[in-house]
Amino acid sequence: MEIEKILKDSFRMWNELTNTEKKTLIQSSFLTKHKKGNIIHEGTQNCLGLIVVIKGSLRAFLASDNGKEITLYKLYENDICLFTASCVMKDINFDINLECLDDTDILVIPVNKYKEILENSKLISNYISTILSSRFSEVMWILEQFVFYSLDKRVATYLLENEENNVLNVTHEKIASELGSAREVISRMLKYFEKENIISLGRNKITVINFEKLEDFSEK
Amino acid sequence: MEIEKILKDSFRMWNELTNTEKKTLIQSSFLTKHKKGNIIHEGTQNCLGLIVVIKGSLRAFLASDNGKEITLYKLYENDICLFTASCVMKDINFDINLECLDDTDILVIPVNKYKEILENSKLISNYISTILSSRFSEVMWILEQFVFYSLDKRVATYLLENEENNVLNVTHEKIASELGSAREVISRMLKYFEKENIISLGRNKITVINFEKLEDFSEK
Repeated sequence: MEIEKILKDSFRMWNELTNTEKKTLIQSSFLTKHKKGNIIHEGTQNCLGLIVVIKGSLRAFLASDNGKEITLYKLYENDICLFTASCVMKDINFDINLECLDDTDILVIPVNKYKEILENSKLISNYISTILSSRFSEVMWILEQFVFYSLDKRVATYLLENEENNVLNVTHEKIASELGSAREVISRMLKYFEKENIISLGRNKITVINFEKLEDFSEK
Repeated sequence: MEIEKILKDSFRMWNELTNTEKKTLIQSSFLTKHKKGNIIHEGTQNCLGLIVVIKGSLRAFLASDNGKEITLYKLYENDICLFTASCVMKDINFDINLECLDDTDILVIPVNKYKEILENSKLISNYISTILSSRFSEVMWILEQFVFYSLDKRVATYLLENEENNVLNVTHEKIASELGSAREVISRMLKYFEKENIISLGRNKITVINFEKLEDFSEK
């Protein structure tokens, strides 16, 4: 796919940029391909540049020293990730990891060119603020879910959001990691739901039996 | 105090702004005074504009349906708050509350003027990104410490178990080593409790002021 087309599809204000800005972005950007499961960014170890997802998807997550993870958000086609260029933003002092959920193609706008354009274009600068606001909003939502709301509600919401035709093919480990909890805690909560005849549990499989009750939990 | 002086002290790049930009900011801004305890911003109910703390301090917090609160950060003299102008930033979709911790004077840059300047000045736009990044980092720290390490709970429990007549004679280093954490992390969490008026900090000495709040944290 042509680089200009990718940039145009991901930068909303592309048509308003100057020809020089467009040319700089087009000429400096390059494509990279990554396998499913690859970690393309880890903490603050590297500073690749601004990246755009061309094909596939990425999961942004926090990882703790003790092996826990919290998924913060996912990025799909045309989505831009700022945190791979966090060295440019000196007031960002947290470490985000990015994992490929599928075989993923990304476009990289190298750090030096990104920095140059950011400093000189109010359009790009405002757009970056917008993306930052949007990611901030995702994280605030998670903070609220985790700190304010209890686990039963969170697990119920997870099940409702991820079931397809009543079924989830998922391990307890996976749910725990998505919810930033421990496997044992999630298993216990799922067993509680099973005893209440809300779900039935199989091997890596959860079947929702009583939607009404589950919704009660999720709406608590 | 002169408005220009306030703006100059809070906008790092003031000297680089054009005369028109400076004039717009100076002429449109106005002072307001608020009593200790006043809520000057609640969720997304109002959109006052960008505000600067002149004197006093503000607490930014999340409030849940069930009456719980999380303090996100505090703002002191010369600090700028963006979220009172969140209507300008369309991708902000969370509700922050702001409370005056003291009698507080603020400078308001009205929404329409803020929007105009933001759209036209790359310096202001980049500065707003920097502030946003800094607030984002505060929130990420809270998310990590509360969710991954339950550090709020663990420090609260430690303080309750080790106080004698409200006092602990202990270094932050010692607490860190007991809890398997780092001194800087413990110091920051203790400062968080201090700002919440739960404890007061002295040299190698911690005094518990509010047992009820500390127990809330330890029982979470």
